[in-house]
Amino acid sequence: MPPKAVVLLSGGLDSVTCLAVAKKEKFDVHALCFDYGQRHKIEINCARRSAAKIGVEKFHLIQFDLRQWGASALTSDQLAVPEFQEYHGKVPITYVPARNLIFLSFGTALAEGIGARDIFIGVNSMDYSGYPDCRPPFIEAFRQCARLGTKAVDEHWEFNIRTPLQHLRKREIIELGLSLGVDYSLTHSCYNPDPDGRPCGHCDSCGLRSAAFAELGMTDPALTRK
Amino acid sequence: MPPKAVVLLSGGLDSVTCLAVAKKEKFDVHALCFDYGQRHKIEINCARRSAAKIGVEKFHLIQFDLRQWGASALTSDQLAVPEFQEYHGKVPITYVPARNLIFLSFGTALAEGIGARDIFIGVNSMDYSGYPDCRPPFIEAFRQCARLGTKAVDEHWEFNIRTPLQHLRKREIIELGLSLGVDYSLTHSCYNPDPDGRPCGHCDSCGLRSAAFAELGMTDPALTRK
Repeated sequence: MPPKAVVLLSGGLDSVTCLAVAKKEKFDVHALCFDYGQRHKIEINCARRSAAKIGVEKFHLIQFDLRQWGASALTSDQLAVPEFQEYHGKVPITYVPARNLIFLSFGTALAEGIGARDIFIGVNSMDYSGYPDCRPPFIEAFRQCARLGTKAVDEHWEFNIRTPLQHLRKREIIELGLSLGVDYSLTHSCYNPDPDGRPCGHCDSCGLRSAAFAELGMTDPALTRK
Repeated sequence: MPPKAVVLLSGGLDSVTCLAVAKKEKFDVHALCFDYGQRHKIEINCARRSAAKIGVEKFHLIQFDLRQWGASALTSDQLAVPEFQEYHGKVPITYVPARNLIFLSFGTALAEGIGARDIFIGVNSMDYSGYPDCRPPFIEAFRQCARLGTKAVDEHWEFNIRTPLQHLRKREIIELGLSLGVDYSLTHSCYNPDPDGRPCGHCDSCGLRSAAFAELGMTDPALTRK
């Protein structure tokens, strides 16, 4: 039986590429997706469709609502949005502090439960180095923490926090995914999709994708998603 | 304005004592409680009532359901319960791998959001040393991880993961709480409460409490909770 892996799957370009990498490595993949109150459920739909297309052992969805909580943190304590922008470059309305810490913690719980040692996360620190929770020192610290907070420490093994995109630029991520057969029309990154879930094509997130596809002589296939 | 602290509050004897310690230190406390599918909602009621009695700035409840997920991890992969028992001594039916990692991650997110640096958790490794996520090395690793995964790292400050009960036995925890005026009738630890939420008085969890109160010449006040 092939080893199991957990892949944190948002439905965005990066995490779907990560899923393809895990599959190429012949893991039985448990995809872990989060519905934490993000505005656009299209992202979750993309995660489901990509998981079905690429093939996973199981698709897990964890739901919790941090939207109101995040908002109350922003409003009740008069934390101005610029203060967040200072550290994160650009903060989507659904920004949640320590989000990757929460996601990786659930990923560790699932991995421990199903007997997986590899946890894939599509962080990369090339395009948005402002996010502390996408940087290698955080990932390494989390690896230690996950080992010490689970039965791994008593059994003398380690979790492998796999970050295959860590040092890739968006264009390189897309090249990697295309080489693995990823269908990027089933990925979603846009902040302002239309009511049918199609990307707007001109927000910052769309812009980053479009530019990367353009470098490869392509049009972002999500723009023509049906 | 006093500094803020996040207190992870389950409604059990330990976490309520922790809350009293944080209050004694003059923090403005944000209590953080989790409804993750545990069988007995009485625990959450106890958390709310204790928070109201001791006094908190705000009571936050995060809901997610890991019950089915945990069950599926146990069943779909034929992980026998004895395997868990080997590492955790005694596993309640609501046992979730990496639970304190998840709880502390949400605590970190809340702390970052509200501008708190102190996060209290009522772990102790005296009575149940089998839980890796209650031991000092895990707590220290988490502290590093929380710093590196949030704006703390860029601002050059640290989260303080406060574990005032770490090296106390149950009896000492109760003595500490009583000295701070904790009403232990409003705490819940029993695995098998009656339909009104009263503790059974003879499960292992009740036994540990009862013995500790008995050492102090007392009857566990939760047994006569109205």
